[in-house]
Amino acid sequence: MTKTVIVTIHPYDGSFCHALMSAVRDGAQNAGQEVDLIDLEADGFDPVMHSKDLIGFLKHKAQDEQALDYIRRIKEADHLVLVFPIWWELMPAMMKGFIDKVVFPGETFDYDKSATGMRSLLDNLQSTTIITTMNTPRSVYRWVFGDAVQRALVRGTFKKMGLKHVRWMSCNMVKKSSDDQRAKWLATAQQVGARA
Amino acid sequence: MTKTVIVTIHPYDGSFCHALMSAVRDGAQNAGQEVDLIDLEADGFDPVMHSKDLIGFLKHKAQDEQALDYIRRIKEADHLVLVFPIWWELMPAMMKGFIDKVVFPGETFDYDKSATGMRSLLDNLQSTTIITTMNTPRSVYRWVFGDAVQRALVRGTFKKMGLKHVRWMSCNMVKKSSDDQRAKWLATAQQVGARA
Repeated sequence: MTKTVIVTIHPYDGSFCHALMSAVRDGAQNAGQEVDLIDLEADGFDPVMHSKDLIGFLKHKAQDEQALDYIRRIKEADHLVLVFPIWWELMPAMMKGFIDKVVFPGETFDYDKSATGMRSLLDNLQSTTIITTMNTPRSVYRWVFGDAVQRALVRGTFKKMGLKHVRWMSCNMVKKSSDDQRAKWLATAQQVGARA
Repeated sequence: MTKTVIVTIHPYDGSFCHALMSAVRDGAQNAGQEVDLIDLEADGFDPVMHSKDLIGFLKHKAQDEQALDYIRRIKEADHLVLVFPIWWELMPAMMKGFIDKVVFPGETFDYDKSATGMRSLLDNLQSTTIITTMNTPRSVYRWVFGDAVQRALVRGTFKKMGLKHVRWMSCNMVKKSSDDQRAKWLATAQQVGARA
């Protein structure tokens, strides 16, 4: 059975971000996939890299119990979907801490002699999709703020660690968006879940 | 008396990041300035935006007690210096959470009709300097990863909220750097502290 792991963070259940997460989940379930939802705040995840985590990074062995649980679950994933809001041009602290503690040497990637110097240990993973919400226009985010999340997360993290088929779905100007636009985004998020 | 507030995060006291922070502090103190050091991990700062923080953002009133203390101290600053490592092309979760909870409407900035739509409420602040360490070459960070921290933090946060004289000092390839290079960086960090 194909497995989709969704990782999400948003402090408000009524947010459009939450609706997007639900749409991905529904799309995957309706397509007969198993869904594993990681809600970082509900888990009380600690996003801070403490001294023991840094030492673990150098020794290639994750230390955080919750992160180890996430790593185990993500190693079983065929598809990985991250859903989060963009605040101050970047992911929330919670999602950055998830990256710092889960994109971990010896756990989800290893160093080698590839083009980027890293190879993925997520052997089942076929695709990774990042879905974000923001209130900045697409062109401003790209040309003024340099598509920071695309550069840092898609290119500088997931592709660098050796993942293939990494995509970014950006929902811009969400506050001012029409019902039609929102319906389109939710339909696309369902398709992301269904791999349609 | 001129006041410099230093905000820092690094889980390892022996890091070069920590040495840079000390150099800024020494430079400021030797120049006769008052120094207020904010060590986010020592304070046990919670970088997560919880539901009450998000509601506070909408109501323009910060809720986190520790963040309110930081806001009060930064409002007294003439110079602000952030010192942190770059992990996965960006600041650690702790520093992102500091931004999310301290760059707050009604507290450190307000919305208005300026070019960026925001104006700073940090009336004393004359300069803001970001000092970072990374093991990526400068040219790769710029051309492949789009200077993500410059775009998101310097341009997309501090300049957007209305701060003037925002500078970024990037220490690249730190692991492989020579003693000479490190001495130069530390001297520059001292000058940042001394405003020399």
